[in-house]
Amino acid sequence: MEHPENSGEYKGLVVNAGIEQPSSVNPYLKRKLKKRQLSVAEYVEGIVKGDVTILSRAVTLVESVKPEHQVIAQEVIEKCLPYSGNSVRVGISGVPGAGKSTSIDVFGLHVLEKYGGKLAVLAIDPSSERSKGSILGDKTRMEKLSVHPKSFIRPSPSAGSLGGVARKTRETIVLCEAAGFDKIFVETVGVGQSETAVHSMVDFFLLIQLAGTGDELQGIKRGIMEMADGIVINKADGDNLERAKLAAAQFRNALHLFPAPESGWTPQVLTYSGFYNIGVQEVWDMVYKYIDFVKDNGYFEYRRNEQSKYWMYETINEQLRDSFYHNPTIEAMLADKESQVLKGNLTSFVAAKNLLDTYFAGLKN
Amino acid sequence: MEHPENSGEYKGLVVNAGIEQPSSVNPYLKRKLKKRQLSVAEYVEGIVKGDVTILSRAVTLVESVKPEHQVIAQEVIEKCLPYSGNSVRVGISGVPGAGKSTSIDVFGLHVLEKYGGKLAVLAIDPSSERSKGSILGDKTRMEKLSVHPKSFIRPSPSAGSLGGVARKTRETIVLCEAAGFDKIFVETVGVGQSETAVHSMVDFFLLIQLAGTGDELQGIKRGIMEMADGIVINKADGDNLERAKLAAAQFRNALHLFPAPESGWTPQVLTYSGFYNIGVQEVWDMVYKYIDFVKDNGYFEYRRNEQSKYWMYETINEQLRDSFYHNPTIEAMLADKESQVLKGNLTSFVAAKNLLDTYFAGLKN
Repeated sequence: MEHPENSGEYKGLVVNAGIEQPSSVNPYLKRKLKKRQLSVAEYVEGIVKGDVTILSRAVTLVESVKPEHQVIAQEVIEKCLPYSGNSVRVGISGVPGAGKSTSIDVFGLHVLEKYGGKLAVLAIDPSSERSKGSILGDKTRMEKLSVHPKSFIRPSPSAGSLGGVARKTRETIVLCEAAGFDKIFVETVGVGQSETAVHSMVDFFLLIQLAGTGDELQGIKRGIMEMADGIVINKADGDNLERAKLAAAQFRNALHLFPAPESGWTPQVLTYSGFYNIGVQEVWDMVYKYIDFVKDNGYFEYRRNEQSKYWMYETINEQLRDSFYHNPTIEAMLADKESQVLKGNLTSFVAAKNLLDTYFAGLKN
Repeated sequence: MEHPENSGEYKGLVVNAGIEQPSSVNPYLKRKLKKRQLSVAEYVEGIVKGDVTILSRAVTLVESVKPEHQVIAQEVIEKCLPYSGNSVRVGISGVPGAGKSTSIDVFGLHVLEKYGGKLAVLAIDPSSERSKGSILGDKTRMEKLSVHPKSFIRPSPSAGSLGGVARKTRETIVLCEAAGFDKIFVETVGVGQSETAVHSMVDFFLLIQLAGTGDELQGIKRGIMEMADGIVINKADGDNLERAKLAAAQFRNALHLFPAPESGWTPQVLTYSGFYNIGVQEVWDMVYKYIDFVKDNGYFEYRRNEQSKYWMYETINEQLRDSFYHNPTIEAMLADKESQVLKGNLTSFVAAKNLLDTYFAGLKN
């Protein structure tokens, strides 16, 4: 505000602005506490050079919910896109207790030793939304891989819906590939819909199972078996060997009941032991045989294109629903309309129409 | 227009209006050619009285795509709601050639004879969209039922998407129930996603299968078997009897592999012969045993409520997508964005964001 005595009626009288007092807090301290934000160009350069520290900071940006971080993150991803795509992406799923961590540790060391290159292990765990921290992708669970110079392990992002978590993981894949990681593992738990999300971003979907009481098929949702390109029975060692073989036979039988997958590949069932490192080579021979097979018949590229399209439409549909169901007016009306439908006072269709009319009228203002 | 000589400057001069000439076309003819449109009250009264002609005209209104018809239709449905709900709704599915028509003919006569009441046979066939006419629910295929005084047969509505067709069928169920039809069959083909739509509007889902080459499970999509409350193998007669029994054993085996359904009911597998009318009673004993079972344990009402909610949210989500994808600006942009995503110039998420920003900005104007 201009000082009042500077106005016309106090002609001849001028009040000068005071001198700004220095802050009592050392202004230089801030820079020391907070890392300097990199520019988009610096991020991209660092990532493409394979700088894991910068890659890690870029992933943190991708996972951030702050809009200003998202703007930078999207630009970085955009610029990394031309360097991405050149990898084998494997989804690894299995119920808790199937020995996923031990297996991934052994699998990772095997592929790095046999095929060279670099490996990134990512994770999708929608349950981390509630627990505010994911047990998946926890470095301490992968003893050898976590200290391997060619590996990069990143736990599941812990904010947002499954759609949000999956989206961030898919974006992280782009960054990892641009940083030269030519093998990507995406780990997930064997519950909920996270399998579908992982399946829609990988080339090969590996399902880890255990031999149990002879009833192993009971616990598997049909949809998950349908997605598997390979099923592997862990802990096929010692006394458990026969049971594991029996379980494998059961799974082979069950797979026979269903139509062949679109890829033309016949899903295989193998046994192995992550703990004793038995049969691990056969598992990865299978995966790489599949990759050769689908690269030959064109399915590999076809599927990656389909996945890109899927994610575009999935994002659109999710945001359309978000916009509607998080609209304050709709949120206030929804419970009442639902209860009227349940009481039989209103048809489902009229209730829907009322809500939609309100929503679209509100958007116009 | 007022005659010019009636204006102020021609004071004293008044021109009278001429006599209107009668039309050279008989104005009464129109009424004779076109049925008089009934009022909402007349429709409702006729339906509740069980007048099948008026019921039939109301269903035509429900199926009409004209907005003015839809307004009346929705009011009629609304007013019929309090009279609806009191029926047993059975979905009947099976691949072409499984003998659905013959079976429904025999099934219908059986339930009318044994349980009395009235039966409506509806159909959902999304393929009728293309062929502009549905083979499902065709009266000529159900010889005896089509001339039965207690039956009402209505073919699949032939306009619109699966969602639209299913919605019309669900609304028709309300009208039929209000007209006193206490048994509703909803027929569908064993292909596509129409099963899911039928499953979401019936109490019992019956899957008709054939014994074939010993490979019968091959042809069934996993999702469909998951929905079945009962699987019945047709043509269990003569030389085919043993094969039918073998197929039934295979289906029982396959059902064992999967978790028990939410209803607490164990899906059953039976054999019968529609043509020779063998085992039909056992099929319907099973259906009515199921109905008693789920009415006792509360699942019947729970599921009907869930279905009403499902249709409300399904309608909302479908209309949200329609509004977006049929938006002219979006339609013009979509192919280009998709191709940029496929070429790797744009991430799926940025493409989605661009489209959504354009869409919502357009809605504001």
